[in-house]
Amino acid sequence: MNLTHTIASRFDDPIDRRGTHSSKWDKMEQLFGVSAEDGLAMWTADSDYASAPCVIEAVRQAADLGVFGYSWEHLAYRDAIQWWMKNRHGWDIDTNWILTSQGLGNAIALCLDVWTAPGDGVVIFPPVYHEFAHKINKSGRKVLECPLVRDGDTYALDLDDAQNRLTGSEKMLFWCSPQNPSGRIWTADELRAVAEFARRNDLMLVSDEIHHDLIYRGHTFVPMDVAAPEIRDRLVMLTAPSKTFNIAGQRTGNIIIPDDGLRAAMANRLNTLDYAPGSLGVQMITAAYSPEGAEWVDAQMEYLDGNRQLFDATIADIPGLWSMPLQATYLAWVDFSGTGMSYDDITARVRNDARIAASPGPGFGTGGEMHMRFNLATQRARVQEACERLRTAFADLQ
Amino acid sequence: MNLTHTIASRFDDPIDRRGTHSSKWDKMEQLFGVSAEDGLAMWTADSDYASAPCVIEAVRQAADLGVFGYSWEHLAYRDAIQWWMKNRHGWDIDTNWILTSQGLGNAIALCLDVWTAPGDGVVIFPPVYHEFAHKINKSGRKVLECPLVRDGDTYALDLDDAQNRLTGSEKMLFWCSPQNPSGRIWTADELRAVAEFARRNDLMLVSDEIHHDLIYRGHTFVPMDVAAPEIRDRLVMLTAPSKTFNIAGQRTGNIIIPDDGLRAAMANRLNTLDYAPGSLGVQMITAAYSPEGAEWVDAQMEYLDGNRQLFDATIADIPGLWSMPLQATYLAWVDFSGTGMSYDDITARVRNDARIAASPGPGFGTGGEMHMRFNLATQRARVQEACERLRTAFADLQ
Repeated sequence: MNLTHTIASRFDDPIDRRGTHSSKWDKMEQLFGVSAEDGLAMWTADSDYASAPCVIEAVRQAADLGVFGYSWEHLAYRDAIQWWMKNRHGWDIDTNWILTSQGLGNAIALCLDVWTAPGDGVVIFPPVYHEFAHKINKSGRKVLECPLVRDGDTYALDLDDAQNRLTGSEKMLFWCSPQNPSGRIWTADELRAVAEFARRNDLMLVSDEIHHDLIYRGHTFVPMDVAAPEIRDRLVMLTAPSKTFNIAGQRTGNIIIPDDGLRAAMANRLNTLDYAPGSLGVQMITAAYSPEGAEWVDAQMEYLDGNRQLFDATIADIPGLWSMPLQATYLAWVDFSGTGMSYDDITARVRNDARIAASPGPGFGTGGEMHMRFNLATQRARVQEACERLRTAFADLQ
Repeated sequence: MNLTHTIASRFDDPIDRRGTHSSKWDKMEQLFGVSAEDGLAMWTADSDYASAPCVIEAVRQAADLGVFGYSWEHLAYRDAIQWWMKNRHGWDIDTNWILTSQGLGNAIALCLDVWTAPGDGVVIFPPVYHEFAHKINKSGRKVLECPLVRDGDTYALDLDDAQNRLTGSEKMLFWCSPQNPSGRIWTADELRAVAEFARRNDLMLVSDEIHHDLIYRGHTFVPMDVAAPEIRDRLVMLTAPSKTFNIAGQRTGNIIIPDDGLRAAMANRLNTLDYAPGSLGVQMITAAYSPEGAEWVDAQMEYLDGNRQLFDATIADIPGLWSMPLQATYLAWVDFSGTGMSYDDITARVRNDARIAASPGPGFGTGGEMHMRFNLATQRARVQEACERLRTAFADLQ
């Protein structure tokens, strides 16, 4: 317990990422018109605090060796991934099931490339991770939106409605679990219903579970493969340590495919394109997926819990604003519709008055109108500052 | 001069890469039956000595920051590449011409993917970098071999013979310059002849110049784009800092395309697949392509020159063995045909008696029979040890 608190205290260390090649900070002005001079970057989903000490130590050791030649996906790397899935998620995987992509954006693109053709439809449940639709469109496939519905203070699926929307040309379903941007954790029953929906409609099911480690105390996450192993013949599981350990810049993600035939198809594509993980990425991930890494993640979640409580309390104080209660992720999903303002007005207040770069809700598809997503994975002092600025920017509503 | 000698002395620092995820050392026993316990790894083209101090310092700085989040290809990275090409190779490039691949193996695969279709022929000039043929075959394209011919103590092109071999289905030409495995530097006239051959036969010309920095004193390297800018409408230039600075594990290479239309096609494919360089790779390369990096490369070439002189003198002493004089690269190409032995006998002596893992010549295609390629980018003491072992293994010939 003491050790956890010692680790936790480091999240407050002030770190200035400006000028460190950080896209979140260094592209903020270009994309949002929010100057890095006094702006707060709360968009891209990475963290402003340092990674776990065991990960940093792996990088130091690599520097001490000084040789950065050709590496390979050695057994320790695969064993570490297997250990993590078993110990953190109760998920038994075979080390042979693991393929490595250049991050999960690349993995999503490769799934489209391997299992769909131009013109095929791909089902998504918006509002959802904006890159799903971007990648479907960029590759010449078609987005089929099956919107989530508001159910009390969270979202729910409407699979009857989804069934009616299908056109017959759909070949794949992109699933996001825990859900981004809402922070929703799906129940095992809901996962089984989605799996059955995919089976009934002959859809490949790509389950993006990148936020699976960022679970708040009191909630339980269930991997799709644990909930519905009966659909393994159409299942691709995507996980990554990138959000969990703040190492997204290494662009290394896990494509975990239990089915031999499906795995062979993806492995062949990776092999033909000559993909392989970078050596530093392999070393960082091997260090991350460890008992030391797990302890750090627990401390991180305790810290993030404080951030979300502070943020949600502020939003609850501003009339017309509402923040969806997070079960997972460090991404707060804020509904501004109660203000009665236009989205342009909201944007102007957040960007120009509060000087905060947040992710625009409409980018997440249907249901994202009048929303913004705020990244809370930053020092508490910055969350505090963001709260004060939002309070001031919307002071006339109070 | 003193500084160069100070740098050079560090190449002798003993470094044990066994157990460091090095494919060259840790896969040696599995692939060659040469135990890492007392074997010498002289196959994979990376180096056993540490990278340039400026590169190592970039990794240390990243560890000091401790944040490894999303990055972007910032201007300093592109400016550094531009500076390097201009200052080291007399090659003027626009920073917009630069695309980034996951290493040059991936770049070669992407060229096949973007500009050829299954069944198309691809011209290569063997003996040549074995991955050319592997990648052509893996992607369902067809290898057309146009063998180099021995001309005195090096190789020469026979483009008349090549012209006669074309079947009409060829769409692309893979060029290797400086040439691997022979260490040959092509003259500007030869480069123009190859360019004209590509133009005449309507072939895309992919020029893999990954060894372009490893040039021995007294020799001059000319980039294809400098020798034959008139074929830019079919030219793709591939370069990388991976061999030069021993950072191949970062899997980051340059695809440099002067032509707007060709570049747009490759950029679109990279974008659709969601490729982007890893942040540590970007930081290491930005540090490498600098005056400090250049000075280190000069020192490295002085050191390698000592290694090749030692190695060549030993080979020259063993009747029946002959090592091609290197103009570039740290890869010695040894012809064993003068021994009158079978290739199996040669292999047994090198692997079992000398306990050296070298790259088998037949893998480089026609002309590689009875050859082996020895990687000399290692500590002088290891080259000395390899020389003694080869001398002993072939003692009966002396």
